[in-house]
Amino acid sequence: MFKDLKERVWEANLDLVRRGLVSLTFGNASGADRARGVLAIKPSGLEYGALKPSDIVIVDFRGRVVEGKLRPSSDTPTHIEIYRAFSGVGGVVHVHSPYATIFAQARRPIPCLGTTHADYFKGPVPVTRLVSAREAGKDYEAATGRVIVGRFRRLDPSDTPGVLVAGHGPYAWGGTVEEAVRHALVLETVARAAWGTLALAGGRSRTLPAYLIRRHFGRKHGPDAYYGQARTTSKETPS
Amino acid sequence: MFKDLKERVWEANLDLVRRGLVSLTFGNASGADRARGVLAIKPSGLEYGALKPSDIVIVDFRGRVVEGKLRPSSDTPTHIEIYRAFSGVGGVVHVHSPYATIFAQARRPIPCLGTTHADYFKGPVPVTRLVSAREAGKDYEAATGRVIVGRFRRLDPSDTPGVLVAGHGPYAWGGTVEEAVRHALVLETVARAAWGTLALAGGRSRTLPAYLIRRHFGRKHGPDAYYGQARTTSKETPS
Amino acid sequence: MFKDLKERVWEANLDLVRRGLVSLTFGNASGADRARGVLAIKPSGLEYGALKPSDIVIVDFRGRVVEGKLRPSSDTPTHIEIYRAFSGVGGVVHVHSPYATIFAQARRPIPCLGTTHADYFKGPVPVTRLVSAREAGKDYEAATGRVIVGRFRRLDPSDTPGVLVAGHGPYAWGGTVEEAVRHALVLETVARAAWGTLALAGGRSRTLPAYLIRRHFGRKHGPDAYYGQARTTSKETPS
Amino acid sequence: MFKDLKERVWEANLDLVRRGLVSLTFGNASGADRARGVLAIKPSGLEYGALKPSDIVIVDFRGRVVEGKLRPSSDTPTHIEIYRAFSGVGGVVHVHSPYATIFAQARRPIPCLGTTHADYFKGPVPVTRLVSAREAGKDYEAATGRVIVGRFRRLDPSDTPGVLVAGHGPYAWGGTVEEAVRHALVLETVARAAWGTLALAGGRSRTLPAYLIRRHFGRKHGPDAYYGQARTTSKETPS
Repeated sequence: MFKDLKERVWEANLDLVRRGLVSLTFGNASGADRARGVLAIKPSGLEYGALKPSDIVIVDFRGRVVEGKLRPSSDTPTHIEIYRAFSGVGGVVHVHSPYATIFAQARRPIPCLGTTHADYFKGPVPVTRLVSAREAGKDYEAATGRVIVGRFRRLDPSDTPGVLVAGHGPYAWGGTVEEAVRHALVLETVARAAWGTLALAGGRSRTLPAYLIRRHFGRKHGPDAYYGQARTTSKETPS
Repeated sequence: MFKDLKERVWEANLDLVRRGLVSLTFGNASGADRARGVLAIKPSGLEYGALKPSDIVIVDFRGRVVEGKLRPSSDTPTHIEIYRAFSGVGGVVHVHSPYATIFAQARRPIPCLGTTHADYFKGPVPVTRLVSAREAGKDYEAATGRVIVGRFRRLDPSDTPGVLVAGHGPYAWGGTVEEAVRHALVLETVARAAWGTLALAGGRSRTLPAYLIRRHFGRKHGPDAYYGQARTTSKETPS
Repeated sequence: MFKDLKERVWEANLDLVRRGLVSLTFGNASGADRARGVLAIKPSGLEYGALKPSDIVIVDFRGRVVEGKLRPSSDTPTHIEIYRAFSGVGGVVHVHSPYATIFAQARRPIPCLGTTHADYFKGPVPVTRLVSAREAGKDYEAATGRVIVGRFRRLDPSDTPGVLVAGHGPYAWGGTVEEAVRHALVLETVARAAWGTLALAGGRSRTLPAYLIRRHFGRKHGPDAYYGQARTTSKETPS
Repeated sequence: MFKDLKERVWEANLDLVRRGLVSLTFGNASGADRARGVLAIKPSGLEYGALKPSDIVIVDFRGRVVEGKLRPSSDTPTHIEIYRAFSGVGGVVHVHSPYATIFAQARRPIPCLGTTHADYFKGPVPVTRLVSAREAGKDYEAATGRVIVGRFRRLDPSDTPGVLVAGHGPYAWGGTVEEAVRHALVLETVARAAWGTLALAGGRSRTLPAYLIRRHFGRKHGPDAYYGQARTTSKETPS
């Protein structure tokens, strides 16, 4: 039924390991098929080495399993909140990659200090508030999703395709599951560079001026995009 | 006689190298068979590349070789102290992984700053006192074990499956040797993230609130565990 | 027509990935054939895994495509400015390697703290000013090249075969595209060592004395060079 | 003639690359045959990938080529000074491994903060003075060797099998070329752990007490050694 979607989501989950964003089982990628009202996600607690495309679980946007014998990732409610609130999102990734996790643990946004950052994020990568004791006691994973969505009240999720959950780690998203993986990798890359820059500058680092952020973000997005081999699509990246 | 145990312990020792926790011969993993009153451990000073399952040495809980032609790891007395004091432990790992060793050398516990930490350790990873001059002059390795056990007088070793030996490096344990390896890897992962967080925050990092530590540790352990594909066992991990 | 040049430039681009200087598509290498008035460069936005020698685009020094079906890298105008201003340059590389990017983001030159640095760079690796709002609004990539060239008004590009573009990342060059790749790797290596040295020394690190910089740079360059197997050429490196 | 020695030295040089101690051509290993009054060393400026056992150059202790068609490493005079002054040394390694180089550039010794350090170095890894302008102007590489030897006036090179050359990088040695490689790897490992510990502790890190240094160094060396499978030899390491 959902063979193609399952294969893509399976491939994306393995890609997280290959790119060094995940160790053990700490991470998951999902992809949505909005026309059919479902998302495909990694099953809970399975080692990546043993994962087969047929293990990927199909869930509807209320969290009910549509297809698959295994239990979906325990983070599924967080993914669902993101899909429901951000209509343009077709893929979501959650990892504990080292430097993004460091910023999440320090509860500090990642400032926009360089052009790679500005190519993908039109400003700092924001950090959420902590999930409250009351929220953690009820539906913790869904609450995590609501906390993420709440952080974007005045932000456009396509300008800022990722976030740091305080004390936890990053979530990233994109038009497709493949783009979500790429954004998770960019987020880790810019986190590492920002961490090193702040260390070198004794914490007093200057952000990129707004005109350069606009210039870089605009090279890839919007009507004047001129990167890649044709009209820029979500699958292309600058070089 | 102990073919299965030897193979698992052999595999676990190679796993330490594959996961980057060990370089040269600096590390060892052991697994116990409590019913038969023995543990299996890496022989002393052998290169991992040359190690065969049949090289693994079987020792009883008083340190006498039961099976095997090679001398057991010189750290065997430390392992034995841990097995004797912590009745639920079925596997022990000692490594000198970079960031856990940094905290051990700084003689500082690893604070609980994030959810991956809380998934496995219900609070900070403690650090022991130094082995005293008198202890080091007598039975140094057994004394190291007693110092570890002494540090857990008011701690539950299943809530805190690892420790930093001051000026030395980490020990981790678990219900099985495979779980002990996993805990050694988690310990290194959270040490690295804590190190980076403390550097970013100028040493003034805030720990995760107690309700989130409980929430995460509880997701994997105890009666309300809901991670993985069935009732959580020691071989499963959150995703 | 340009088969050999395309193969070398293709190989150099893959080498950037193999040596860990590039992730995703963030980087490009070009090589010039000055006799024929052209340069060969990576096409824009293509994944390295899919890149074939025939995908390499041939462009003249005014930026017009001479051969190739794909659009050249959007950084081509920057490369062209470097080739036009620095007559001895036969290869140019642009990457976002971690530590060189950190210095570029901190907008600080890399001080000459060690002999590997002095073997290749006769002094600090300079940093440019930011591209201005006006420049960014017009021909941003060409302006980046002019800002680089402007930084070398009082510097010899063969004494200093690389630069940090403020808020962006490094450019490196050499007599050939292979040498440009090597200089990009050296630049990253010395950036990493300088970063760690400044962190260890609390920012108060002392540069190598001038007589040692001259001694090392002279071992490889100029009339008294005595490294390698014969009269030093641009393809040889010290050991 | 020197087939076995050449193969071992060739293997040791490749090992430096495999273990991540060397990038490009920045490093060299040599091994001595004192009975025949020669040493075998890597040729100058050759890429490691192209190196064959027959390329290794045989040189006598006055620096004259005895066998081989290529020019020996330009660092050969440094190696020779070490062999001539330290009679027990049978192998010498020079690398620019990242963290040892950081300490060399900061011109700071590596304090003994942990047991892995004490297993191999009976105290801090010392740092030399800078080579003077006068020395650098004459026989720079031999002067580097004399500066190393001068630093050991009150140190035993078998208690301290390595040194940091100020502003340059580490040299390590041992009874054999294989042991010299191992000591270079240990030196890098302990430099990395010391760097991270000093960063975590704000530069105020405490060294291991003398009784623990003696205990650990003694486990491997001297009459009471009890590591490994038999009387400890130079090829064995603790576990």
